[in-house]
Amino acid sequence: MITDPSPGAPPLTIRTARPDDWPALWRIVEPVVREGETYTYPTDLTSDEARDLWLAAPPARTVLAEAGGAVLGTARMGPNKPGHGDHVGTAAFMVAPAARGRGVARALAEHVIAWHRAEGYRGIQFNAVVETNTAAVRLWHSLGWRTVGTVPGAFRSPAHGDVGLHVMFRSVDT
Amino acid sequence: MITDPSPGAPPLTIRTARPDDWPALWRIVEPVVREGETYTYPTDLTSDEARDLWLAAPPARTVLAEAGGAVLGTARMGPNKPGHGDHVGTAAFMVAPAARGRGVARALAEHVIAWHRAEGYRGIQFNAVVETNTAAVRLWHSLGWRTVGTVPGAFRSPAHGDVGLHVMFRSVDT
Repeated sequence: MITDPSPGAPPLTIRTARPDDWPALWRIVEPVVREGETYTYPTDLTSDEARDLWLAAPPARTVLAEAGGAVLGTARMGPNKPGHGDHVGTAAFMVAPAARGRGVARALAEHVIAWHRAEGYRGIQFNAVVETNTAAVRLWHSLGWRTVGTVPGAFRSPAHGDVGLHVMFRSVDT
Repeated sequence: MITDPSPGAPPLTIRTARPDDWPALWRIVEPVVREGETYTYPTDLTSDEARDLWLAAPPARTVLAEAGGAVLGTARMGPNKPGHGDHVGTAAFMVAPAARGRGVARALAEHVIAWHRAEGYRGIQFNAVVETNTAAVRLWHSLGWRTVGTVPGAFRSPAHGDVGLHVMFRSVDT
């Protein structure tokens, strides 16, 4: 999948991540984990622990977005639950700080939606979108996710104190 | 913790489950898993896989309820998320078919609430309560949980088709 996020920029390519991509992915994942504002990962996660969490095995999948040889973002996707809940998927996204505001997350999300459709999933659920992550909330709403509900105070934001976690859902038309 | 679920019945005792309790617990867990109406566990789960999922290690905890030497129910509890979400707990409950309607789930839930309070949790979240499990939904509402939202069609019920999964939350007063 190739998109063109801005005029004159090198085209963005999205492909499956390989184990040897991890050093480049960790440069994106580490600052997000250390900051602790958008995910419930332990902020002292090691590179090895993060690799085991982020690099998915089938039926889940991890992709990266690159442009001009630089890795700009990554997404992890797969079933949200096992058993009789595995027709609903989930996904997580991280974008390099220097690449924000350039449509990388949107391109990754459109890729994730297409993947779920192709794999026969019937919906995509986000379990814990931090309510102060307003750029993400706006983007998910613009891409068809709605907020199903908000668990009050379920996230301890270093910058904002106790804030809610949104559960979000989007149907996938087959 | 000791309660008396019905006049004349032997008193119900709740205690931490030990590894050697697994054969008795599996007799409760297996029919719930095989039926596939109330949890998203794979319905072909083996005893070993179920033991690894159900018997918790700290900071999580698994308990059982017994009366007159018979194990009647079990609950698993612990943090719902790691990192900046680990001040909210979660729990799961199973009751032996022959022991239903005798207050075992209520006694286990009251024990779970007390445990979360003692451990300093500030809330208890259920991530996936099957909406057709009306006895459970009624019980959780009566014990102070509210439905935060419902993910539509997120559970394939063998008996009812696609049904919603409730996200439920209850504050824990310190």
